[in-house]
Amino acid sequence: MSARESKLLALIYRRSRAVERMPGIVVGPGDDTAVVDLGAGTLIGVDQLIEGSHFERDRASIDQIARKAIARSLSDLAAMGGQPTCALAAAALPSGFDHADDLFDRMAHWALHWGCPLVGGDIARIDGPLTIGVTAVGRSHPARGSVLRSQARAGDDLWVTGALGGAVASGRHLEFEPRLAESQRLCASLGDALGAMIDLSDGLGRDGARLGAASGIRLEIDLAAIPIHESAEDWRQAVAEGEDYELLFSTRADASIPDLGIPCTRIGSIIEGEGCAGRGPDGAPIDLTEMGWDHTT
Amino acid sequence: MSARESKLLALIYRRSRAVERMPGIVVGPGDDTAVVDLGAGTLIGVDQLIEGSHFERDRASIDQIARKAIARSLSDLAAMGGQPTCALAAAALPSGFDHADDLFDRMAHWALHWGCPLVGGDIARIDGPLTIGVTAVGRSHPARGSVLRSQARAGDDLWVTGALGGAVASGRHLEFEPRLAESQRLCASLGDALGAMIDLSDGLGRDGARLGAASGIRLEIDLAAIPIHESAEDWRQAVAEGEDYELLFSTRADASIPDLGIPCTRIGSIIEGEGCAGRGPDGAPIDLTEMGWDHTT
Repeated sequence: MSARESKLLALIYRRSRAVERMPGIVVGPGDDTAVVDLGAGTLIGVDQLIEGSHFERDRASIDQIARKAIARSLSDLAAMGGQPTCALAAAALPSGFDHADDLFDRMAHWALHWGCPLVGGDIARIDGPLTIGVTAVGRSHPARGSVLRSQARAGDDLWVTGALGGAVASGRHLEFEPRLAESQRLCASLGDALGAMIDLSDGLGRDGARLGAASGIRLEIDLAAIPIHESAEDWRQAVAEGEDYELLFSTRADASIPDLGIPCTRIGSIIEGEGCAGRGPDGAPIDLTEMGWDHTT
Repeated sequence: MSARESKLLALIYRRSRAVERMPGIVVGPGDDTAVVDLGAGTLIGVDQLIEGSHFERDRASIDQIARKAIARSLSDLAAMGGQPTCALAAAALPSGFDHADDLFDRMAHWALHWGCPLVGGDIARIDGPLTIGVTAVGRSHPARGSVLRSQARAGDDLWVTGALGGAVASGRHLEFEPRLAESQRLCASLGDALGAMIDLSDGLGRDGARLGAASGIRLEIDLAAIPIHESAEDWRQAVAEGEDYELLFSTRADASIPDLGIPCTRIGSIIEGEGCAGRGPDGAPIDLTEMGWDHTT
C-alpha cells in the first residue's frame, strides 16, 4: 500500500469512527481486521462490481457505483431472509482514478443507509478496470431462520416482487432498492410457509433454474402472468435481461402473502421435475433455463 | 454470471460439500450467502491479490497464486491473535484465463490446510489483470482477546518473528507461512503482557509506523539487531522491501517470550513520541516511517 493509499484509508477510517458505537461492532476499520460480535445463523456473502461488466464509468456517477456495489451484496442477504450487520469493501483502483475518497465515502453512506456499517476494506492499484468487492454480513430471521434456495417443494406457488425487464435501459440497475424490508415481512408473516427464495440478478430464467436445481424441482411459469416493467418490451426481456434484483420465492400452496408495499405477483407453480419452463397462451412449454445474462457474450 | 461460470461454481460447490460437516458451518457455498455460527469477538478482514502488483502470472504457478491469496488474509488474522473460522474468495478472471477451476480448487485446499473452509465466493470476468479478493473470518484468542495495533505502551520491548528482506527475490512472498500458530502461542503464553501486533506486508518501516500511529507512541529500532534474511543485502532492504508476512509485536518490559519454533528477535523499544526510527552504530536516528513498499511507484 502506498503512502497516498495509507492516508486515504486513514481518512476513511477517521470518518468511520462512529461505526464503533454501533451494537455488535467492537473494533471498526483501521486494524488488521475488524472485531464484531456475531451470533448463530450469521449470513456472509461476497459480490463483485466491475467496470465494463456491471457499470460504465461514463454512464454512472461515483454515488451510483458505490450504491450498486453495496446494494448488490445486500440483495443477497435479502434473498436469505437476512438483516444486514456489517460489510467490508475492497477496491482495485485504475491509475488516474482520483475519486477513491468519494467512492469509499459513498459506499460507507449507502451501507449505513441500509443499516450495515462498513467495518473494513482494502485499497489496491490495478492496471485495468475499477473493481469493487463487497462482503456483506447479516443475521438470519430469528423466527423463520435462513431462507435457502433448496427449500421449494412440489405444490408450492411461485411469486416475484416488483416488475422485471429493462433494468439497464431505465437506469434501475444503478438505483434499485435491495428488498430487505420486503424479505423481513415475508419471513415474519409466512414463517415456514415461505419456501425457497433467490434474488434476480441474472434473469428470471437462469436464476429460476438455480432455485429449481437447488430444490430438485421444476418451475412452471405462466408467461402471461410475469409483471413486465414499463421499460421492457416483452416477456423475453423480462425473463432474460437480468439486473432486476427482485425476489423470486415459493410459498406453500394458498399461503396468504402480506402487503409488501410493492407489487407481488404469483407467476406460476413448483412441480416435480427439473428446470425452469414457461407456458404461453398455446400451452407449449418453453425452456427458460438458459435465458439470462451472460457476462461472456 | 455466465452458464460456464455457473457450471464452474457448481463444480467448486460440489467439491466443497464436506465444508458443511465442519463445526460452525451451517450452509456452505452455493446459496445467496453462507450461513455460519459465529460468536463474540469475531474477526473479519479482506485483502486483495492483483496480477502485476502482488504476483506475475509467468513467475507464479496457479497453486502459488491461490496459496498467497489465502495466506495474505490469514496473516491479518494472525496479526490480531486470531484463529481462522472460514473464508470467502472472489475472483475477477481475464478473458482467456482457463485455470479458474484449478485456482478455486487450490484456494479451497490452502484454506482448509490452515483450518479455514471456503464457504462462499464469486466469479466475474474482467478486461484486465487476474484479481482475487479473500475475506477471512476468525475468532479472537479466548483468553487474550483480540490483539490490536493500538495496544503498545511506552516501555514495551519490540520484537519480530523470522528474518526480513529479499522476500520477492527468494520467492518467499509466494510461499510464506502465515504466523497463525506462533500468534496463538504468544497470546496463550503472554496474555496481557502481549501489547500491540501487526503483520509486515509493506515493510518494517511503514508497518511499524502504522503500529506507532495507532498506539500513539514511537518505535525505536536498533538497526544492528534486525534479523536480515540471507537473501537480503542489508538492513535497508529488510526494512523497506515488504512482503515478509512476519509478526511485529510489543511486550511489556522483560516479558519472557515462549519458544515459537522459529526465530524471534528483540529489535528495539517503544518510547514516548511518534513515528518509527532506526538507530545505527553512530547513534543518529534514521526516519523509517516512509520506508516500505509503494504500489504506485
